[in-house]
Amino acid sequence: MASLVLCGVSRSGRTAARLFMPYCRSDVPNAMTSYFSLKKAHLTGTLLSRTRCFSHTTCRKFMSHLAKANTQSGRSRKRMFIAAGAAILAGYVTGVMHFLKAEMTSVSVGDDEEEDDILQKCKGFMSMPVTDVKLLRQKKGETSTSMEMLIMETQAAFCRALEEVDGGKFKVDRWERDEGGGGVSCVLQDGEVFEKAGVNVSVVFGHLTEEAAKQMRSRGKTLKGVDGKLPFRAMGVSSVIHPKNPHIPTVHFNYRYFEIEEADGSKQWWFGGGTDLTPVYIDQADIVHFHSTLKEACDKHHPKFYAKFKKWCDEYFFIRHRGESRGIGGIFFDDLDSPSQKEVFAFVKSCAETVVPCYLPIVRKHLNDTFTSQEKDWQQVRRGRYVEFNLVYDRGVKFGLATPGSRIESILMSLPLTARWEYMHEPPKGSREAQILEVLRNPKQWVS
Amino acid sequence: MASLVLCGVSRSGRTAARLFMPYCRSDVPNAMTSYFSLKKAHLTGTLLSRTRCFSHTTCRKFMSHLAKANTQSGRSRKRMFIAAGAAILAGYVTGVMHFLKAEMTSVSVGDDEEEDDILQKCKGFMSMPVTDVKLLRQKKGETSTSMEMLIMETQAAFCRALEEVDGGKFKVDRWERDEGGGGVSCVLQDGEVFEKAGVNVSVVFGHLTEEAAKQMRSRGKTLKGVDGKLPFRAMGVSSVIHPKNPHIPTVHFNYRYFEIEEADGSKQWWFGGGTDLTPVYIDQADIVHFHSTLKEACDKHHPKFYAKFKKWCDEYFFIRHRGESRGIGGIFFDDLDSPSQKEVFAFVKSCAETVVPCYLPIVRKHLNDTFTSQEKDWQQVRRGRYVEFNLVYDRGVKFGLATPGSRIESILMSLPLTARWEYMHEPPKGSREAQILEVLRNPKQWVS
Repeated sequence: MASLVLCGVSRSGRTAARLFMPYCRSDVPNAMTSYFSLKKAHLTGTLLSRTRCFSHTTCRKFMSHLAKANTQSGRSRKRMFIAAGAAILAGYVTGVMHFLKAEMTSVSVGDDEEEDDILQKCKGFMSMPVTDVKLLRQKKGETSTSMEMLIMETQAAFCRALEEVDGGKFKVDRWERDEGGGGVSCVLQDGEVFEKAGVNVSVVFGHLTEEAAKQMRSRGKTLKGVDGKLPFRAMGVSSVIHPKNPHIPTVHFNYRYFEIEEADGSKQWWFGGGTDLTPVYIDQADIVHFHSTLKEACDKHHPKFYAKFKKWCDEYFFIRHRGESRGIGGIFFDDLDSPSQKEVFAFVKSCAETVVPCYLPIVRKHLNDTFTSQEKDWQQVRRGRYVEFNLVYDRGVKFGLATPGSRIESILMSLPLTARWEYMHEPPKGSREAQILEVLRNPKQWVS
Repeated sequence: MASLVLCGVSRSGRTAARLFMPYCRSDVPNAMTSYFSLKKAHLTGTLLSRTRCFSHTTCRKFMSHLAKANTQSGRSRKRMFIAAGAAILAGYVTGVMHFLKAEMTSVSVGDDEEEDDILQKCKGFMSMPVTDVKLLRQKKGETSTSMEMLIMETQAAFCRALEEVDGGKFKVDRWERDEGGGGVSCVLQDGEVFEKAGVNVSVVFGHLTEEAAKQMRSRGKTLKGVDGKLPFRAMGVSSVIHPKNPHIPTVHFNYRYFEIEEADGSKQWWFGGGTDLTPVYIDQADIVHFHSTLKEACDKHHPKFYAKFKKWCDEYFFIRHRGESRGIGGIFFDDLDSPSQKEVFAFVKSCAETVVPCYLPIVRKHLNDTFTSQEKDWQQVRRGRYVEFNLVYDRGVKFGLATPGSRIESILMSLPLTARWEYMHEPPKGSREAQILEVLRNPKQWVS
């Protein structure tokens, strides 16, 4: 059964070439993976149904790798099949028929090819990349390929690190977008350590209206398309982790890349991203560690990056109607397109690689902290504020919810499992709850 | 102390005349009480500090009435003082200094006057009306006075009915709006029966920009002001009740009135409102009772009202990104300004008077229903959807959050105490959870 699932033919019957449009450039605001979590997505189920371009040899090798269940890297793939089966049983997936068809269709594969480093890397991912491996291999030197590999690597590295500390396994949903592209959503819900952990990758392409293209770019630059339409390609990884223990903070990160092509053939590209922390209580050492790690990554690339992107983060994650920040910040940037594609990619890579060292030491430090029901309640109140920010202000969520055909479950996987709204909640003066409120109302410089 | 609190002078020192602007007319969209829950509100604390225009006699009589604690109607007022004290102790209120000042200031009262029916009615309210009683008495025949009395009566009747069934008491917060007017927010949180019950009254006035006036009216009619500004007056009662037991539905209602004056002196007025039910499970008899009661109220005034306003309700309370209604509907209307002020007020009065008979029989019926943890979880998931509607779509909430100086606690008191977001939650086919989802996705006609 596994082989049929792995090598089944996509019902959509798109050619592999259509799945990769290197001429396209794109643009989207924050939380782009949410923006582009667009459904009619044949939610897997199908898992690796688009691996049809593998040779038999490649396919067998990949399967043989998968068969090594219970090895560190093989465990979550085994769970993927279980998750896919469970999804069908529970009637979870919109693309159930697609999955069944994939199971029953004969294998269609390409020529025999040598296993290469791209395929080697893919073996460590939570799922195969959205873009066909053969095409990634062909376009190996291009930024879009490097970025797709980076976001898949980041997803895998972060998920594995969280699985190790939690003991649970991520549920992996691979989905396709009818208009072009798809994604891989990994969610660990109600684990030992994590109440809800979501790590989402998406790689999408198609055409944007001029108005949409303008809105999506934070600088709002007008772009000229053919008949008002602009081909684009966008990809990113985004994650929100809500732990159970109120002494372990929530973390969020998002790294994204866009390409868009104007009517005159000129191509634009840019990167966006950020990592930020939302603790329930202030632990100075944790916060200094978090910001220092980010600053170190920034400083390698530009001496002004940290200060600029720290400020941008404080400004973006601000809950206006409460007059307070969502958390204690981190870094946030958008529209980054200079000095060169190579240099900006290198910076984004450094940032993406800090996600685990930023967060995991904090998780481990507080893993066995005891907490009271009052502390849990305060966490729940703060979770309510998180919901308020994400539903009222987050540009990615707003855009996603307003876009017909969006994959809502991926967009809203950033919401906590549970939240609380108490009327007129205001912690007593001098309490630890009042201490963090003070910080949220007056963002601080944590490192200089 | 009670007498000083009751009869303290408002620090703002506004004249009574400024508190009532009969020449103003107004306009605001749905959930106007949220819209106008504007702060810098000297949150009481002060309770009846604006009763300074009472005569000594009136004041004594009112206090003497209040002193009858433990009588049915006196109980909640006693609690008001407790709430005020608790608020100060906990540092809850922004207007603490105002409260203290009110306590220490000598009493300023008007002429001796006979107790009349307006004052008699006020004795039954959760707090004194926002508009000074003396002024209400002077403007006795006007629609704004009738409406303010109706919303105060509705608040009191509903709160008393809920208190009776719950055994708990509402916390009463009386607040002022610096720009003009104020409100009375009643919240019962974590009671025996109700997880969170909020009943809010607000009466506000001032000036709107032409753009704001246009946006506020659902028909979007352009109104001409002096120097682009239009005097307005708006008032309403709104309520959301979230019970603990998943077999008792959530209810929401809102009845509002607006007056606005154009540059040429022409005055416009209109009413809006509605009552709707959000069950966690379908109980056909409950829903038929709820809709029948509303239909009966509508039919007394116009044979087409029920059908029209039922449809409007289904359309308004629709969570687009989920493709489902928030609940099983009820009635919803806006911009109602014909055939006459008197007739529309009579209709709104009928609607407001159905709130208790619509809802309380359903509460009592399910009071002792047992429930499982799975049923509680499903309720929490539905509460998550309620939060999504209120934060993403509700016009009142959106307007309120975007308005500087809004009283956020009153705007967001409609949010449940607790809510839940499960990734990819989809109930099994044939379950009672799937049954209500089917109804929410395809609104039904419950009565003909």
